[in-house]
Amino acid sequence: MVSWIDGPITDEETARLAASGGALATSVRELIDAVVRSEVDPDELDSVRGEVEALTKRLRVQQLPGSFGETYGTSLHAWGNAAMGLRNAIAPPMESTWLEDGTVVSEAFLSAAYEGPPGRAHGGVSALILDQALGEAAHAAQRPGFTAWLTLSYRNGTPLGRIRTRAKAKPPEPGKEHKTVVEGSLYSVADDDTETLCVEAEGMFVLPRAVRERLAREGR
Amino acid sequence: MVSWIDGPITDEETARLAASGGALATSVRELIDAVVRSEVDPDELDSVRGEVEALTKRLRVQQLPGSFGETYGTSLHAWGNAAMGLRNAIAPPMESTWLEDGTVVSEAFLSAAYEGPPGRAHGGVSALILDQALGEAAHAAQRPGFTAWLTLSYRNGTPLGRIRTRAKAKPPEPGKEHKTVVEGSLYSVADDDTETLCVEAEGMFVLPRAVRERLAREGR
Repeated sequence: MVSWIDGPITDEETARLAASGGALATSVRELIDAVVRSEVDPDELDSVRGEVEALTKRLRVQQLPGSFGETYGTSLHAWGNAAMGLRNAIAPPMESTWLEDGTVVSEAFLSAAYEGPPGRAHGGVSALILDQALGEAAHAAQRPGFTAWLTLSYRNGTPLGRIRTRAKAKPPEPGKEHKTVVEGSLYSVADDDTETLCVEAEGMFVLPRAVRERLAREGR
Repeated sequence: MVSWIDGPITDEETARLAASGGALATSVRELIDAVVRSEVDPDELDSVRGEVEALTKRLRVQQLPGSFGETYGTSLHAWGNAAMGLRNAIAPPMESTWLEDGTVVSEAFLSAAYEGPPGRAHGGVSALILDQALGEAAHAAQRPGFTAWLTLSYRNGTPLGRIRTRAKAKPPEPGKEHKTVVEGSLYSVADDDTETLCVEAEGMFVLPRAVRERLAREGR
């Protein structure tokens, strides 16, 4: 039994868990989409539900007592994240690239399960994605923090399908290095890679004093 | 075979579909949580994945060609919604009560799959929930619309678990009845029902001209 909660696991074990856990989450994302869209009859829905319950029982034979954050401090933490977690089927998931100039570019595919208005992403889903994108850009600027405020301007409806975000932290104000303002935008991406601006965002990310002090003690 | 895409279905059929589809989505929410938290070994994860893929195949035997919004205009539309959809396992789901004075009170339980910082809801998940809550309050004020802008102020971290929102539309400005400003807040709710303020939000919801004209033609 590979278990990460009892202590560090090897790189090889981590890679094996990432592959199997990631593939399982991917399969559950497909299941979520199918549950929204299926037109099979209610008896078949009931039958599938029985099978889903049995699978959940198998997974719960041994499990973390709480959320994935329990494992904070290990490299596995982000696996539970609601926007980009490898093992989180709620996450589209977002995949991010940190560019040299500090810009973070993220991509995701929004399936039927991310719908708000007909055929369009829920405004709150765009908010979830932009909060994560801006937060990562604060991190990329080596000034990570928790969201203090976030403003979103919806320019065009976001069609379901491929989306991309670009986000970048502004330079810090002297003496306020723990407060990072980040700007970013969300685009719909066509088959030929043309981008259409959908949502603009600005946010402030703050590292709480307690965390700053802990990091300082740890020499980070 | 009960199919809603080929035309209206009876109230009885709708109720049967709601019961079966809702129970299936509930079971998939449990599965999502178990996938995040499970500590069973990779071989077992792989085996469960095989079973999940088989279930998805059974559901896809007959399905909507696109997202649930294809069925817009029927009472079933909200079943696919990312924040409160009956058949959407990504939705916590939120359950809302519309009060006489126009306040919309919504409740949800945020499991491990909604995590951002360790043990806390992802800031973007709070944004998703507040966007939906404020949008519903605009609707409750009989001035529904799409999100034009949304601002969020994070006052305290939102622990995973029970949350509640309250949202209410401001009175319309004369001549701008199609632009509705809504205020709302998200609270963490303790076992004894004590509320702690976590996030404050304000948003504007706008009904596009094309939709207004269509509703006018339909006499709504």
